[in-house]
Amino acid sequence: MNIRRLLPFTDWLFHYKKRDLGGDLLAGVIVTIMLIPQSLAYAMLAGLPPEYGLYASIAPLLIYGLLGTSRTLSVGPVAVISLLTATALTPLATPGSVDYIKLAILLAAMTGVIQLVLGLVRGGFVASLLSHPVVAGFITGSSILILISQLKHVLGVKAAGGHLPYEAVINLVQAAPGTNWVTLGMGVASIALLLFFRKPFRALLERFGLSKGAAQMLARTGPALLVMAGIGAVSFFALDAGFGVKVVGEFPTGLPDFSLPMLDLPVIGSLLPAALAIVLAGYVESVSVGRSLGAKRRQTIDPNQELVALGAANIAAGLTSGFPVTGGFSRSVVNFDAGANTGLASILTAVLIGVVTLALAPLFASLPQVVLAATVIVAVAGLINFKELVRLWRYSKADGALMGLTIVGVLGLGVEIGIGLGVGMSLLVYLARASRPHMAVVGRLGNSEHFRNVKRHPVTTYPGLLLVRIDENLFFANTRNVEDRVLDQVAERPDLKNVVLIFSAVNSVDSSALESLEGLIARLRALGITLHLAEVKGPVMDRFDSIGFTKHLEPGQVFLSTHRAVEALQPSNAPARAA
Amino acid sequence: MNIRRLLPFTDWLFHYKKRDLGGDLLAGVIVTIMLIPQSLAYAMLAGLPPEYGLYASIAPLLIYGLLGTSRTLSVGPVAVISLLTATALTPLATPGSVDYIKLAILLAAMTGVIQLVLGLVRGGFVASLLSHPVVAGFITGSSILILISQLKHVLGVKAAGGHLPYEAVINLVQAAPGTNWVTLGMGVASIALLLFFRKPFRALLERFGLSKGAAQMLARTGPALLVMAGIGAVSFFALDAGFGVKVVGEFPTGLPDFSLPMLDLPVIGSLLPAALAIVLAGYVESVSVGRSLGAKRRQTIDPNQELVALGAANIAAGLTSGFPVTGGFSRSVVNFDAGANTGLASILTAVLIGVVTLALAPLFASLPQVVLAATVIVAVAGLINFKELVRLWRYSKADGALMGLTIVGVLGLGVEIGIGLGVGMSLLVYLARASRPHMAVVGRLGNSEHFRNVKRHPVTTYPGLLLVRIDENLFFANTRNVEDRVLDQVAERPDLKNVVLIFSAVNSVDSSALESLEGLIARLRALGITLHLAEVKGPVMDRFDSIGFTKHLEPGQVFLSTHRAVEALQPSNAPARAA
Repeated sequence: MNIRRLLPFTDWLFHYKKRDLGGDLLAGVIVTIMLIPQSLAYAMLAGLPPEYGLYASIAPLLIYGLLGTSRTLSVGPVAVISLLTATALTPLATPGSVDYIKLAILLAAMTGVIQLVLGLVRGGFVASLLSHPVVAGFITGSSILILISQLKHVLGVKAAGGHLPYEAVINLVQAAPGTNWVTLGMGVASIALLLFFRKPFRALLERFGLSKGAAQMLARTGPALLVMAGIGAVSFFALDAGFGVKVVGEFPTGLPDFSLPMLDLPVIGSLLPAALAIVLAGYVESVSVGRSLGAKRRQTIDPNQELVALGAANIAAGLTSGFPVTGGFSRSVVNFDAGANTGLASILTAVLIGVVTLALAPLFASLPQVVLAATVIVAVAGLINFKELVRLWRYSKADGALMGLTIVGVLGLGVEIGIGLGVGMSLLVYLARASRPHMAVVGRLGNSEHFRNVKRHPVTTYPGLLLVRIDENLFFANTRNVEDRVLDQVAERPDLKNVVLIFSAVNSVDSSALESLEGLIARLRALGITLHLAEVKGPVMDRFDSIGFTKHLEPGQVFLSTHRAVEALQPSNAPARAA
Repeated sequence: MNIRRLLPFTDWLFHYKKRDLGGDLLAGVIVTIMLIPQSLAYAMLAGLPPEYGLYASIAPLLIYGLLGTSRTLSVGPVAVISLLTATALTPLATPGSVDYIKLAILLAAMTGVIQLVLGLVRGGFVASLLSHPVVAGFITGSSILILISQLKHVLGVKAAGGHLPYEAVINLVQAAPGTNWVTLGMGVASIALLLFFRKPFRALLERFGLSKGAAQMLARTGPALLVMAGIGAVSFFALDAGFGVKVVGEFPTGLPDFSLPMLDLPVIGSLLPAALAIVLAGYVESVSVGRSLGAKRRQTIDPNQELVALGAANIAAGLTSGFPVTGGFSRSVVNFDAGANTGLASILTAVLIGVVTLALAPLFASLPQVVLAATVIVAVAGLINFKELVRLWRYSKADGALMGLTIVGVLGLGVEIGIGLGVGMSLLVYLARASRPHMAVVGRLGNSEHFRNVKRHPVTTYPGLLLVRIDENLFFANTRNVEDRVLDQVAERPDLKNVVLIFSAVNSVDSSALESLEGLIARLRALGITLHLAEVKGPVMDRFDSIGFTKHLEPGQVFLSTHRAVEALQPSNAPARAA
């Protein structure tokens, strides 16, 4: 049972159905065609030589195909993760250098180990740290950053990135006078072509009588066609030597080497924030894609196993000269639409990319960088979404502000700090709400054994006795507020001798709340007032007993019911003031 | 009203009562005697020349005396804040250097501005971020660090601190062979004397007929007497020149200069984590002391105004060559016991310290550093509390682990990271609990309009209709869990046509939950299932309406009651399966 959960391929591999094969084969091929330019482009975005994009698209896909619970998710390099990789590594080494590559490999391995461990301890809930406004702000902000980072390739200039985003813009503006006009022309044409492929081309094909599905499939080969056109143009017109158009350049043919990530503790420490950001961002992207595709076919995915699978895929990337990967949105949709039925589609893509790496690598030497940049730009431009900011603001000022803050943080201070800021502020906003729990001073309803809020019901209260019902679990964020409000009540009623806290709605009391209760007991005692509890639930009482809390309470008592507390503390039982 | 809240001195200064004067005068004098060695020692701990300890004990006390809501809190340098100051500044400048002093001044100003702003926006709830296990772990861990940092003064050796705590220990062990035996002797004697003053001396005095109060008061002059004895011994036996005993050395006589903190953005950025740690730690220490002393006299303190007052005090420190301050535990207790009635006691202490700085500074030139170190060691040794670790573990494994983790974090990775780790883990533990909200599939109870949990009551369910009651507010941390559990139910019942979510206990739906609901609607729709809502509360409905959510729901509806939902979706109203 447990083994089957950890090895999802046992569900389909050993009794593979022939009818699944057609879809898997077609999807494998289509995704490969799409992934080649993507993997080269995202390697460039990550600051790595192009072949590393291909390397990151072999072993990780193989592993995810076997271990993932989504049958259609397509793992590999994605834009945001590549950006995170670049921003994390650029301060530590020169992009493209041997040291830089080593750091990228280490980052992939670290990401993988963290995801794997998190998945094994069933810690998938950490993804809930990323609230929707933070994710939305992060995607819009980082898409803008990625777009900016690609402009230098479109202009054909050299411009450093800079530590903070605005420095990249300054560097770009300063370099702009050196624009290579041929490159810029190719860039604009490429972007126009890609946009044409996105919609008008599909419509055109349909008008020429192609089925919707076929038109869609053909349109998706657009980037690959553009790559071929780019290679052709450069080779034919010698645009690289003659006009200074930058090309990908030759890279080694052959499968990636086995790589052992270095174990340098200070380096690991300095990469940790980036690894954590990649773990979270990668996981959230992957799971949300996997989930929405899965729902369409009534397939559920297991979030914790997804972490295990992504973790294993990233470890595989770390061992085979790759860089951090995750499930990509556009690729997975293509995989799904092309009919992927099982992990075999992913495995086939891995094999095909392996073949390309072995056999076709020399082809890409003449591929212009500007074509890759255009691919990235068109991909991320669609993710910039300011409408969502307006919508969120309308729904809730706090959530709108949170998205705005995350965008500003990402753009102004960088991706990691931007996410950190967003997550921190979401938690603060939530804690600010949670820190004011609902409480009510109660009194007796008529002659019944029922006690209700004095503000809402005509109830009887007693001199020298305060009855307070607490309506939420007590934990570190709200316990001080409870303490303060009880003390405020006490300050208003100098006659008080006894205070009873009614725990009917309290399911848990953490140690901070316990500490606070002990402080309250001591403070009330200093004023000559005794604290009692009533209606304490079993599990809470067990906890109290484990450290002998009732001794702290003495002479205060724990009463089974509020009624009994009143009986005991007010033996005459004569109501003295009516509210 | 608002002005009176922001200027608490208006409550006592303009109609000062003669009967308060005696207590205020005595407290002012006693606290001064106690504060002189403390301020010198904590300046040393913070890596600053001794006079800066005195500077930090003038203006801040004056300001807090006027603006604080606690009438007995004694503000000034404290051990933990001094340690945080030293760990933050040591990587950036050489302790004691001009640059280092500038950074300390800046840190005080930053801390002050953050506290002031936080107080003005009523943001005192952020203190709830520090749960009890984290505070307890932080105090024990940092006390051990402080103790270690003082050992070099007791041995009379030079040893660098090191970036991480363990390096300080290594440095100390390496320097140990150079121990100055005279210094060590004085250190051991000083510690013994201070311990003697703490309890046995008091008991002795009481046996000689002194009243308990007088004995206590006299015992508290112990550190000051030790300081005098130390100065005397050094001067008389020329221990500094003759035996290499390190002394405080001469420092300038006179009041502190006016200082304008430098405005260097990168430096401010790098000090920010330390400033935040000081804001939190200082505030928590101050408020908990102020609160427990206030309760003894039925005086309440306003946590947000305390932030304002501490903020103003730290800004004052930043403007008068001070370093970060907060309300100290031991001093405040002395202030209280000596009879402080109003802020005048604090103001008097400030004036007296000013006089000492003007007139008596040359006296301290011969004060041995080891005496100050002994003062610090005895003060912090009492704060190391491993019993609490055992107690917490017994009460709750999670909370015990949290305290242990914080101690290990503080000792292994430093104070700031240790606190950060503790706060982060508390939040994760809490979110892990909150991420599994209570939900129930419900059915009709008999022929009534009541619907109850199918697991607890004999209720009727309907074919093609799933009724799910959600028992908690929906927010980013629990919304995915709700979605998953609804989809799990759907996967189990292929007959489903309609799902009704009952919102009777949902008071708020944040935008993440809204997003999740929209996703759920789309996923269910892809399966041919319609989602409906029932018993949506007014404020939640208003939010939904603000962005036209009901359109997303179509053809799903919002029903006033579960009963009506069942009537509408199951017109025949014929129960089909009994649970």
